[in-house]
Amino acid sequence: MNRKQLVDNIRHKKSYLCVGLDTDITRIPSSFLSSIDPVFEFNKKIIDATKDVCVAYKINTAFYEALGLTGWDAFEKTVDYIPRSIFTIADAKRGDIGNSSAQYAKAFFGRLNFDAITVSPYMGEDSLRPFLEYADKWTIVLGLTSNSGANDFEFAKTGDQFLYEKVITTVSRWGTPENTMFVVGATQGQSLQNVRRLVPDHFFLVPGVGTQGGSLAEISETALIADCGILVNVSRNIIYASDGTDFQEKASLAAANYQSQMAQFLAR
Amino acid sequence: MNRKQLVDNIRHKKSYLCVGLDTDITRIPSSFLSSIDPVFEFNKKIIDATKDVCVAYKINTAFYEALGLTGWDAFEKTVDYIPRSIFTIADAKRGDIGNSSAQYAKAFFGRLNFDAITVSPYMGEDSLRPFLEYADKWTIVLGLTSNSGANDFEFAKTGDQFLYEKVITTVSRWGTPENTMFVVGATQGQSLQNVRRLVPDHFFLVPGVGTQGGSLAEISETALIADCGILVNVSRNIIYASDGTDFQEKASLAAANYQSQMAQFLAR
Repeated sequence: MNRKQLVDNIRHKKSYLCVGLDTDITRIPSSFLSSIDPVFEFNKKIIDATKDVCVAYKINTAFYEALGLTGWDAFEKTVDYIPRSIFTIADAKRGDIGNSSAQYAKAFFGRLNFDAITVSPYMGEDSLRPFLEYADKWTIVLGLTSNSGANDFEFAKTGDQFLYEKVITTVSRWGTPENTMFVVGATQGQSLQNVRRLVPDHFFLVPGVGTQGGSLAEISETALIADCGILVNVSRNIIYASDGTDFQEKASLAAANYQSQMAQFLAR
Repeated sequence: MNRKQLVDNIRHKKSYLCVGLDTDITRIPSSFLSSIDPVFEFNKKIIDATKDVCVAYKINTAFYEALGLTGWDAFEKTVDYIPRSIFTIADAKRGDIGNSSAQYAKAFFGRLNFDAITVSPYMGEDSLRPFLEYADKWTIVLGLTSNSGANDFEFAKTGDQFLYEKVITTVSRWGTPENTMFVVGATQGQSLQNVRRLVPDHFFLVPGVGTQGGSLAEISETALIADCGILVNVSRNIIYASDGTDFQEKASLAAANYQSQMAQFLAR
């Protein structure tokens, strides 16, 4: 999916919501546990309940790998089930020397046909280059993450910049705003504004709203640009909005509630 | 596997060789392509040919994920096939916020029972902590990697240290030499000596010998400590030593050649 298609979807749905399918088999309603593939069956219900109000799904590989082969199967079936008009993100945080990264790119962009993958910048340019070579695919690079560990290295001072600033400005020269996004945590307060200043045209994937405590209003006021430029991810506050028989209705309501707030920010 | 067991194996076999099973289906002898699981069948032959002279296997997830479900199946079967006396490394370079990293730890340490996993430090302490909590399991953190991209961020100056130095000294305080190793590339020349000075007691996982051009002699002279303290990985120069019918014999010879050199360095 190219940037124009993504932005058209955002305008049409008046939403920049990404739903995170971090599906933990120990947290889904127990009624699913008797089905052959509980995680996939749950994901289908969540996708059905949210697809009209979100523009992206982010599938976190960790939760699927934890289930072994059956988890990988559920992962593949889930991405296949998502309507092709919706942007798909493999939240995989991969990154290795060039010939290995090329294999990851083949896995997620080629075989699984994801629109985007999250990657770690630590190993530098040749570890990201294979992802950037795919047309109409997106490389989403960890910039300033939402967790407390962001303080350990991302905020290390290097010259007159923090490491996260150096990463973002450097990586922005390797790719373009048409094929590169940055992960910028919603919990990072005023640093968000700083990132927007560094890369005025790039899309951000913003985790940290909901369970992690980030504010949708703050992100939106800080980082929205003319063609939106942000995808705000919510995982647990939507997919586990209820653990009862009404989980699908509650997930739909939670997603719709985010979307209606987003529609207001987009209309400003 | 704990450190004593690993070191006992090294002394017994007079070897600190790790064989990298970065098995690319397009590079294995064509005779395997008619079997049901070519990658696993090839890996079995390589393991049979090398297990007497190596002390570790490193399985790179990238090459398996590129094949989808059948690749993940080959990955699981391969780790199961490795004798339990040999140290197993999931070369996965994972790392995410705490609750996601906990799922990766469950996948690789719990379900698959690997002895070790490679992880990226970018996201800081809470992204590594779940791995460190497993007894007799090892977290192998990217320190100074073997690729050209190491120059982009790992060599960024932060205060009076390079980033890789800050990462290694910081992470060494989160874990211990009994549960933490560092990836230090064989291509990094004199910086290897510097890393050994920073962490005199830790094991290093050293990629970059062979195809990438690193020198076994240089690493060994620089980084060996009283109880060895290094695992030197070789992938392509062993597993693709020949693409003919003699691939198994040539892999065995290549591995034995490394081992005999290692025996000499250990005897010094």
